[in-house]
Amino acid sequence: MRRTFTTLALAGVLGSCAGGGSQPPSDPLPSWNDGPNKQRIIEFVEAVTDPSNPSFVTEEERIATFDNDGTLWVEHPMYTQLVFALERVLALAPQHPEWKTQQPYKAILEGDREQMGKFTEHDLVEIVMATHAGMTTAEFERIVTDWLATAKHPRFDRPYTETVYQPMLELLAYLRASGFKTFIVSGGGIEFIRPWTEGVYGIPPEQVVGSSIKTKYELRDGNPVLVRLPAVEFIDDKDGKPRGINAHIGRRPIFAFGNSDGDIEMLEYTTIGRSPSLGLLVHHDDAEREYAYDRDTHVGRLDRGLDEAERRGWIAVSMKDDWNRLFAFEQ
Amino acid sequence: MRRTFTTLALAGVLGSCAGGGSQPPSDPLPSWNDGPNKQRIIEFVEAVTDPSNPSFVTEEERIATFDNDGTLWVEHPMYTQLVFALERVLALAPQHPEWKTQQPYKAILEGDREQMGKFTEHDLVEIVMATHAGMTTAEFERIVTDWLATAKHPRFDRPYTETVYQPMLELLAYLRASGFKTFIVSGGGIEFIRPWTEGVYGIPPEQVVGSSIKTKYELRDGNPVLVRLPAVEFIDDKDGKPRGINAHIGRRPIFAFGNSDGDIEMLEYTTIGRSPSLGLLVHHDDAEREYAYDRDTHVGRLDRGLDEAERRGWIAVSMKDDWNRLFAFEQ
Repeated sequence: MRRTFTTLALAGVLGSCAGGGSQPPSDPLPSWNDGPNKQRIIEFVEAVTDPSNPSFVTEEERIATFDNDGTLWVEHPMYTQLVFALERVLALAPQHPEWKTQQPYKAILEGDREQMGKFTEHDLVEIVMATHAGMTTAEFERIVTDWLATAKHPRFDRPYTETVYQPMLELLAYLRASGFKTFIVSGGGIEFIRPWTEGVYGIPPEQVVGSSIKTKYELRDGNPVLVRLPAVEFIDDKDGKPRGINAHIGRRPIFAFGNSDGDIEMLEYTTIGRSPSLGLLVHHDDAEREYAYDRDTHVGRLDRGLDEAERRGWIAVSMKDDWNRLFAFEQ
Repeated sequence: MRRTFTTLALAGVLGSCAGGGSQPPSDPLPSWNDGPNKQRIIEFVEAVTDPSNPSFVTEEERIATFDNDGTLWVEHPMYTQLVFALERVLALAPQHPEWKTQQPYKAILEGDREQMGKFTEHDLVEIVMATHAGMTTAEFERIVTDWLATAKHPRFDRPYTETVYQPMLELLAYLRASGFKTFIVSGGGIEFIRPWTEGVYGIPPEQVVGSSIKTKYELRDGNPVLVRLPAVEFIDDKDGKPRGINAHIGRRPIFAFGNSDGDIEMLEYTTIGRSPSLGLLVHHDDAEREYAYDRDTHVGRLDRGLDEAERRGWIAVSMKDDWNRLFAFEQ
């Protein structure tokens, strides 16, 4: 059930790596332009995997964590999970006639973008609870899977599971071929991400850390189910990221990749006072091929992170300069 | 740091399996007596790993979960973590002169077993918070590791990390050699278990699910730390086990092994309406070599679980009849 989205993207990546055992191909990162950033990544991986290098790290300690929105897949113009939530409001509206006159639902049903732009965090939590709770975990997985099978990104006109960055797919495969265990550590909902990460990223559900709502266990008609409750359990963002990493992984990563201020604490936890280690941020500076945003956006803001990157020695990866290809569907 | 306890036990198990690739040796479970229970385990593993068998299960879905106390290691006469907590009270007492006159500490400091037998759950939570919180996760790991390096089980006069069941070490190794991913799902504290499971059981920290207290992230003298707070975050017992499995693993196991009524929900979640699957319980019926207890104990009670095992087709493993050897240190 988890292997629905075997994308061309991943097939391409695996195809180029498979059959070679643990030996990476000559250029493991073909979608990355040659330059200092690509070089630092490769030098880091070569150092920690070389037993004769003083920076050698045993395989079990090679933990790499990746943010999802804006790091592995496109997050503009709107987080994919928020698009999902808004479309679920439309789908569920017939069962909720009261929504026609009740905010925040009224604005969504009327497509009132001005009003939607004013949504508070409380509004967003209410929308998430109305659309993400009240069903079993298995039912929610099916809802997510069905939605992703037909929904398309408004600009790229492709399923969201194809708007994943080809350079990152290559990096994930390269790290795994080098004995790393790759994890997602996302502010997004863990159960929104898990159904498709194995097929799209090669990351199994047990290696996904994310935000969550509470669940309740019960036997329903004699069958065990977990019911999703409208109550926040954990927010895996900012300081929640190191806490989530500790709760789920139980070791500090040596490699962490994010793209926004919400990833600062994860990169601190990975790199400060810790050698060898590598912290990286995707800098969305490519309006032509994707989007250009950093200090001034409400979606994936990268402001203090840019300053911290300089101060801490984290790599700011320029989408424009470092990546020669963004998506697998670009030929 | 995690690989402190490379026990003879594990070395023995791995030695008998290593070098053979994924092919298990002719008798993968030598400490198990031949009989219907051993046979059911082996038939199950052979069925789910045989691509031509209708019960075949792909490798990524081969999730096996194990309770810890009483399932993988000895839990009588007292949970090891409770022994640890009581000894920490003694060690910390000089910094807490007020404990001399204050319950529940007074009873512990005076060794007043009658009073200690009356401890309420509230008393136990207070003891855990006084001994398990207030330090960083790294400091707590060192405290646990140091304690386990010298503490000994009162009856077997061996480090607790050696009072692990040899038949279970063989089973863990057999399952992994058969493509299973093995997890601990324990009511015990996740950070009490993680420091030693990789060395003792071959289970890495990211495959340990347990009870937890809250943490706080901060930069202390410029270095990232997680401070353990005196507040319960999650109790991984009873209905908490399927919820913990969902939160950490994100899939239903096909194999689950417990030993007490606290494991019933985990076994339900693993087996009901799910084929192929196997649920098992250790039945402590061996007073001569270990302990005999089931319906009447306060430590690892197995009461309703015995009835459920019969009703649900779970295997009740008799320590006395099914295991010919309990510990690696018995020669």
